[in-house]
Amino acid sequence: MCGIIGIVGKTRVNQALYDGLTMLQHRGQDAAGIVTCQNDRLFLRKNNGLVRDVFHSRHMLNLCGNMGIGHVRYPTAGCDSSAEAQPFYVNSPYGITLAHNGNLTNAQALKRDLFEEDLRHINTNSDSEVLLNIFAHELHQLNKLQVTHQDVFEAVQGVHRRCQGGYAAVAMITGIGIVAFRDPNGIRPIVFGKRNTSKGTEYMVASESVAIDVLGFELIRDIAPGEAIFITADGQLHTRQCTDNPKYSPCIFEIVYMARPDSIIDNISVYKARLRMGKTLAKKILRLYPKHDIDVVIPIPDTSRTAALQLAYYLNRKYREGFMKNRYIPRTFIMPGQSMRKKSVRQKLNAISLEFKNKNVLLVDDSIVRGTTSKQIIQMARDAGAKKVYFASAAPPVRYPNVYGIDMPSVQELLAHNRTTEEITKIIGADWLIYQDLEDLIACARKKGSIKQFDTSCFSGEYVTGDIDQNYLDHIEQHRNDAAKAKKQSCKTELIDLNHNFE
Amino acid sequence: MCGIIGIVGKTRVNQALYDGLTMLQHRGQDAAGIVTCQNDRLFLRKNNGLVRDVFHSRHMLNLCGNMGIGHVRYPTAGCDSSAEAQPFYVNSPYGITLAHNGNLTNAQALKRDLFEEDLRHINTNSDSEVLLNIFAHELHQLNKLQVTHQDVFEAVQGVHRRCQGGYAAVAMITGIGIVAFRDPNGIRPIVFGKRNTSKGTEYMVASESVAIDVLGFELIRDIAPGEAIFITADGQLHTRQCTDNPKYSPCIFEIVYMARPDSIIDNISVYKARLRMGKTLAKKILRLYPKHDIDVVIPIPDTSRTAALQLAYYLNRKYREGFMKNRYIPRTFIMPGQSMRKKSVRQKLNAISLEFKNKNVLLVDDSIVRGTTSKQIIQMARDAGAKKVYFASAAPPVRYPNVYGIDMPSVQELLAHNRTTEEITKIIGADWLIYQDLEDLIACARKKGSIKQFDTSCFSGEYVTGDIDQNYLDHIEQHRNDAAKAKKQSCKTELIDLNHNFE
Amino acid sequence: MCGIIGIVGKTRVNQALYDGLTMLQHRGQDAAGIVTCQNDRLFLRKNNGLVRDVFHSRHMLNLCGNMGIGHVRYPTAGCDSSAEAQPFYVNSPYGITLAHNGNLTNAQALKRDLFEEDLRHINTNSDSEVLLNIFAHELHQLNKLQVTHQDVFEAVQGVHRRCQGGYAAVAMITGIGIVAFRDPNGIRPIVFGKRNTSKGTEYMVASESVAIDVLGFELIRDIAPGEAIFITADGQLHTRQCTDNPKYSPCIFEIVYMARPDSIIDNISVYKARLRMGKTLAKKILRLYPKHDIDVVIPIPDTSRTAALQLAYYLNRKYREGFMKNRYIPRTFIMPGQSMRKKSVRQKLNAISLEFKNKNVLLVDDSIVRGTTSKQIIQMARDAGAKKVYFASAAPPVRYPNVYGIDMPSVQELLAHNRTTEEITKIIGADWLIYQDLEDLIACARKKGSIKQFDTSCFSGEYVTGDIDQNYLDHIEQHRNDAAKAKKQSCKTELIDLNHNFE
Amino acid sequence: MCGIIGIVGKTRVNQALYDGLTMLQHRGQDAAGIVTCQNDRLFLRKNNGLVRDVFHSRHMLNLCGNMGIGHVRYPTAGCDSSAEAQPFYVNSPYGITLAHNGNLTNAQALKRDLFEEDLRHINTNSDSEVLLNIFAHELHQLNKLQVTHQDVFEAVQGVHRRCQGGYAAVAMITGIGIVAFRDPNGIRPIVFGKRNTSKGTEYMVASESVAIDVLGFELIRDIAPGEAIFITADGQLHTRQCTDNPKYSPCIFEIVYMARPDSIIDNISVYKARLRMGKTLAKKILRLYPKHDIDVVIPIPDTSRTAALQLAYYLNRKYREGFMKNRYIPRTFIMPGQSMRKKSVRQKLNAISLEFKNKNVLLVDDSIVRGTTSKQIIQMARDAGAKKVYFASAAPPVRYPNVYGIDMPSVQELLAHNRTTEEITKIIGADWLIYQDLEDLIACARKKGSIKQFDTSCFSGEYVTGDIDQNYLDHIEQHRNDAAKAKKQSCKTELIDLNHNFE
Repeated sequence: MCGIIGIVGKTRVNQALYDGLTMLQHRGQDAAGIVTCQNDRLFLRKNNGLVRDVFHSRHMLNLCGNMGIGHVRYPTAGCDSSAEAQPFYVNSPYGITLAHNGNLTNAQALKRDLFEEDLRHINTNSDSEVLLNIFAHELHQLNKLQVTHQDVFEAVQGVHRRCQGGYAAVAMITGIGIVAFRDPNGIRPIVFGKRNTSKGTEYMVASESVAIDVLGFELIRDIAPGEAIFITADGQLHTRQCTDNPKYSPCIFEIVYMARPDSIIDNISVYKARLRMGKTLAKKILRLYPKHDIDVVIPIPDTSRTAALQLAYYLNRKYREGFMKNRYIPRTFIMPGQSMRKKSVRQKLNAISLEFKNKNVLLVDDSIVRGTTSKQIIQMARDAGAKKVYFASAAPPVRYPNVYGIDMPSVQELLAHNRTTEEITKIIGADWLIYQDLEDLIACARKKGSIKQFDTSCFSGEYVTGDIDQNYLDHIEQHRNDAAKAKKQSCKTELIDLNHNFE
Repeated sequence: MCGIIGIVGKTRVNQALYDGLTMLQHRGQDAAGIVTCQNDRLFLRKNNGLVRDVFHSRHMLNLCGNMGIGHVRYPTAGCDSSAEAQPFYVNSPYGITLAHNGNLTNAQALKRDLFEEDLRHINTNSDSEVLLNIFAHELHQLNKLQVTHQDVFEAVQGVHRRCQGGYAAVAMITGIGIVAFRDPNGIRPIVFGKRNTSKGTEYMVASESVAIDVLGFELIRDIAPGEAIFITADGQLHTRQCTDNPKYSPCIFEIVYMARPDSIIDNISVYKARLRMGKTLAKKILRLYPKHDIDVVIPIPDTSRTAALQLAYYLNRKYREGFMKNRYIPRTFIMPGQSMRKKSVRQKLNAISLEFKNKNVLLVDDSIVRGTTSKQIIQMARDAGAKKVYFASAAPPVRYPNVYGIDMPSVQELLAHNRTTEEITKIIGADWLIYQDLEDLIACARKKGSIKQFDTSCFSGEYVTGDIDQNYLDHIEQHRNDAAKAKKQSCKTELIDLNHNFE
Repeated sequence: MCGIIGIVGKTRVNQALYDGLTMLQHRGQDAAGIVTCQNDRLFLRKNNGLVRDVFHSRHMLNLCGNMGIGHVRYPTAGCDSSAEAQPFYVNSPYGITLAHNGNLTNAQALKRDLFEEDLRHINTNSDSEVLLNIFAHELHQLNKLQVTHQDVFEAVQGVHRRCQGGYAAVAMITGIGIVAFRDPNGIRPIVFGKRNTSKGTEYMVASESVAIDVLGFELIRDIAPGEAIFITADGQLHTRQCTDNPKYSPCIFEIVYMARPDSIIDNISVYKARLRMGKTLAKKILRLYPKHDIDVVIPIPDTSRTAALQLAYYLNRKYREGFMKNRYIPRTFIMPGQSMRKKSVRQKLNAISLEFKNKNVLLVDDSIVRGTTSKQIIQMARDAGAKKVYFASAAPPVRYPNVYGIDMPSVQELLAHNRTTEEITKIIGADWLIYQDLEDLIACARKKGSIKQFDTSCFSGEYVTGDIDQNYLDHIEQHRNDAAKAKKQSCKTELIDLNHNFE
Repeated sequence: MCGIIGIVGKTRVNQALYDGLTMLQHRGQDAAGIVTCQNDRLFLRKNNGLVRDVFHSRHMLNLCGNMGIGHVRYPTAGCDSSAEAQPFYVNSPYGITLAHNGNLTNAQALKRDLFEEDLRHINTNSDSEVLLNIFAHELHQLNKLQVTHQDVFEAVQGVHRRCQGGYAAVAMITGIGIVAFRDPNGIRPIVFGKRNTSKGTEYMVASESVAIDVLGFELIRDIAPGEAIFITADGQLHTRQCTDNPKYSPCIFEIVYMARPDSIIDNISVYKARLRMGKTLAKKILRLYPKHDIDVVIPIPDTSRTAALQLAYYLNRKYREGFMKNRYIPRTFIMPGQSMRKKSVRQKLNAISLEFKNKNVLLVDDSIVRGTTSKQIIQMARDAGAKKVYFASAAPPVRYPNVYGIDMPSVQELLAHNRTTEEITKIIGADWLIYQDLEDLIACARKKGSIKQFDTSCFSGEYVTGDIDQNYLDHIEQHRNDAAKAKKQSCKTELIDLNHNFE
């Protein structure tokens, strides 16, 4: 998961890009980068770390120009990719920079093709570098001294023809403009907006509408599946559908967990969807446990608060914030001669005994992935004096890997993989456990929206791109296992990519 | 406002001190420091910044020993004091280090005395350095080669005799042990706890019980007003009342705003007190506006959520989290040729329109200090479509300066100073505004507790130490004005204190 | 002026590249960089600063592989280029990295061509980026999946056809090998050597033989003008002359000043050449001033020591090191409200009075460029008690700009530009001043060597490439003036190139 | 070995202290520090590293005031002391800071006394911290609110009474002035000077006169053995002899090796003394080898150049700089799985074959300590083609430890310890080896000077303080062995002193 942004402004855009990335920081805290363009010059700063740690005044000073793109990165599987901050750059043709959110499922084949067709060298394991080079190659083939929006859209068509998977990308062609495009299934989100100023209209694209709102831009709409928009350096907006057969099937996990509640994605208010998820969960509980003895509903902060509030409302039970989230998470240092301490959920959450003592509590979380945290939290609730601990997941069981850009553990580590709800209940130690039904989740997300279909693969195992077979799943499983193992060996073979010097 | 911690353990304490400071980080994000002791050697690391930014692996490696103290600092008024991280150190006698939370109201006179009596040089404006030297001087006078707990307590008695104001402090005597003490009015909080290990009992003192809980220690109790506790290096606990006439009057602002809700301070559950504050506010609203047309209660995150939830409950209105707090706050860079942009509350909070559109909303905040934020938030609510915007403050009007260690703006900047509620309502633009009554606040805080009296000075102008006159208030007003002015001139004359090298 | 290095080894080359760059550090203290290759991956570290400041252990750890190139950079004119550390990288074709010493005199035209022919974007003002792209373009045109040495040499032929000026370059083709080449006039130096190890033969190229010596390699020879050598990743050496009409005319300023005395360049021992320069100077003095009253010969350290020693020998006068060089040069800080202090030569040199008092001294320097230092040093000699101060320059008057990569001030700042020796003598305040004659200098450099012609342009105004006209000279003059002016305004518009993130 | 400086100026002294420390950098490259005083405030910056690496603009900005002291530190034996940068600070009495060059031979006893008498805690292994506390204690005992120069001198008398060893120190009493003093034997050097400005006279003390010269001060004289000088904050100079029985016996190793040649120490021109050392060596050679076949005299740079030049002159042989010193020394990185490479002298020196080939060379060094470098250099000379290699040491054999502040290896590592010249010749592989005779060395140093006696202990084993017995020598031998061993184990238990935070 990553966040991307692009702005064509009328004055310097460095501060706006910085602010926007901060609004998208929840989509990735691992690395951040901005590249801006002034005339035919590019200015880049990227590094590992939070936005506020990557950009200091001296870097901001150097980010000149009225046009630029930015990226925040989620830590992804694979020890060797940990140093690959975005945006990436190629100098041929035109000088193109790109920031990407998603995952290409045919990246290996594309990489091979790029070398064989065009001798292009890919220096990292990042599929974003592949995507950039595919786009660059498609654009280069047109061989135009003056690039028009038609050329750009033609190149995006080529990208859609060749790339599989989920991707939302923003690319800047030096001196020419910024193009943003979304895969033909619209799996990953991307929106755009505008702001009128005395010097003319400014345009902005971003992963989520919240960045557009907070910067004082007006949301225009989502980029449609397969569509591209191109904003010229002087502020002209062009849009075109670049695929023949688009299918609107966005990732439902954005609604469940990833997106900020105050975002509107594909015309869906994430906040409202989560409220509805609380309501349907309440109904399911009342249906299954009409005589339940729940005293209080307690969310596991932060994501599940919205659903839990509504759940409590429809259960007609008290909603109480019984867990305090520690905003400042301790870091564990390894001292010589000591073994690594086990990380305790205690360092992240603290229970307020008053709300648990002698009560039957219903804990609500957005989803259950590995289940280790759920187990510890349930134990914390019991230690705090709870009589009974029930558990509700606002999402269905997570049983399958996500292959479109949401980083998940190996299938073997997914608690619900090949397990029944009863088995899971036992493992996490709840008195009972209730999952949202997938149909309910879809209904909650779809309400009034125009979306017919979602990518629900991590719940259903059905992949909307149609190209995911057991081979591919085995491949990523192997990769994730290797990465996990490497991490355990505290592997240090970080790759320094060529656009990125670590200090 | 600051956070302090001290641990006498049976194994290396650096990680525990680090974790504890992280739990106290809400009490100060400006600077952090730890000093540890091994045999007769001290090891120190302190710097400006968050705990996680100040301590890297290389620093942790150097913090040897089973005994140590730590500090997190809130930014305080006064441009020149911004570099004064704690703990402080004096080498005579014994090598003593100290970390302090509070404010001495007779610091200037003490400083003069220290020089005249004992030729002691104070290199900073920090009253913590004064407190350390007073303690050191009192202990030195006893002139013992072997220090006993009696000696330490006698020195604390001297401190109490001489120092006025609010202070909770923890001091480490090299090779001997850790002493913690609290001013005779018990204004600033401090608690202690213990943990049994296979190697013996470990003791810990901290500003708030949450640090004790999360580290797996068991809370013993608060240190009483005027009391001192001394833990010898080998783990013996001694306690003694060190003043003749203690008066239990803790700062009520801890309950209102400063402390974490999951802390227990002076036997008061902060969480419960805040719930009660919501209830009494509800009662006052129902009393004053029996026919109110409130549709929804919306807290201004984060502190007021607890009170708002209960307020909604007793108003029998929906509680909704209509404002999303941005966890990652943008930073504004000044570019050459640009003027400073005004900081917008928009960067900190985002309104979810759904919860405001065509509704009469009651916004709840913990308190109103300058009022500038309140005004902007009310405007945001209106922009989001609210019909009417009511405002409730869980605390009474803040009208007077705090002189016991809570940093506040100049009196002139306090919105409620010399203003009626009507005037304030008009300024912040609310449809109506309701403040908690002071008696109600006290009742909420006292419920079942043994505390008869609180320091409520910023609401009432009554100072429990009895020594605050207009002269002193004028003095700090002048100081705060000067500091504010200096800041505006982006004054850079930072003091490097002698225990502190900036990078 | 820069230093370049390349090694194809049998084990990890990072340390050897580091050591080699240190030996070349005198050729550039402004920035340093290394890129290594392992399989198809590149690892890069570069930054402003000395070699020892740019590379820390963590960077070295990441520089994997048995093949790599490196660069040290001299600060060059032009405010915007100050951030352009080398090596540079392009990903199309193959992934090529390049480090370059010299200057292309048709860089502007080439840059235009690169875009028009191939849409290649050049992001910096550095002609090294141009050179890299020319080479990359020539190689790409051959469109080979498997690159052979023939292909590489053909690409170098293309480079020679298109590029004008002085250049010695080393480029690495990812996974394939390292190519090094020298301009058809052989203006800039470059040598290569080998080392036999138990795992096979390792090859190394470097700007000067001293790097080859000190690393325990055996010097093979200079790369000839127009020649290229290619070392495959598995250690096969190929060489070929890649131009039809090579002309051996190396830059004589290397011998005068730039190179280390213990280097052998184009079969010329720099040390011996400098000894001879001392001898011919002595002869000229004896010829012009047969009755001179010189008491002692004193070099201005460090470069002139070799010539001065021989000069003294043939004058039959004492050689004394009357000036002590401060190895640690103070830096001047600008404090608020203070104006910039004038830099004094006193901070760099200190006179030992004993050697000056009541003596007639002959000061010897390698050359006179601006003359400001010479003037101050002569004054220092007088202040130290010298009766008469004579001055000898081991090089002729510097009257013209260098356009082949040696950074010089604007022509207007060259002391000898449009001035007679008498005028210069007066300006620097010497009793008399003697310059080496150009024919003598050439003879000293050529002695026993095979070089017929040198580039002596900064003395003679004759440029061996034949393409330098007044237009070009005006252009660089303008550029240098602008750069100087920008520097005076302490211009801060540094460019961050895309392979380079500043901290 | 260290360098110290102190200035009482009429304007800000930070830049002058910085420049002065740079001039003393040859006395210590391990750490640097400056403390300045403005009114009653001290401003400190110190850290490990060269002066230019320790002080950045932001630190200089903070070093306010017209009075200050500074220090550069040589790396000393003892793993745990490596982090102890100076100046040190105590706050009682007055706030005193001190910088020290030398070594106290009774530091352990003094440390014990300080605690027992005055409960003073010493946190480091540095005897400088001991010296500071002794001085502080002596001054405190006088118990004066207003300190006069008489008080200061009385305190220095106390220091002389109690401290044994060699020491030159500068201490600043906050707001009062700067005192500098020298041990009763005058072992370590210290001079002072003045500069008249329009605002009054400024005074400066420094380890060597070169700092005074280069800053434009006028050298007044050396501080006499046992003497102290005191400069009040407003610029009054006071001097007094503070011991009854001073004995002038400076360390002769300063003349041989440590001091800069352009310094005047105890009225001795280091430069002239070294010239004389060359002359007497020449005489000895002519006496012992009247028919020597030396072709050329080659110094081992840098220190021996002065002596070698004169030696060549009196031998009537050519002087040639056959070794080039690499000014930029490579650093060896340890890569995982590699063993530490042996450091080669080749990385520091490079031989110019021309000057060795088929010649009989006389190599000249200032002294021989361990002999490992000498051996490698002789081999280099042979590798470069020398027929015979003779070796001359400008100093006598180094046979005994220095206990007065010059860091030397363990006695066991001293090549000449318990070895004859013949044995040494064989070990280093010279054809013959000649040492300066001690009487000659003394005569060279004394020439025209008033010094009757030198500390020559490392040559003669006679210690001028009269208190050095086998016990003490065994103690430091043990300490040095332990330190060496710890270093080999790459011990990391660095102490962070309380005035010093490492980054």
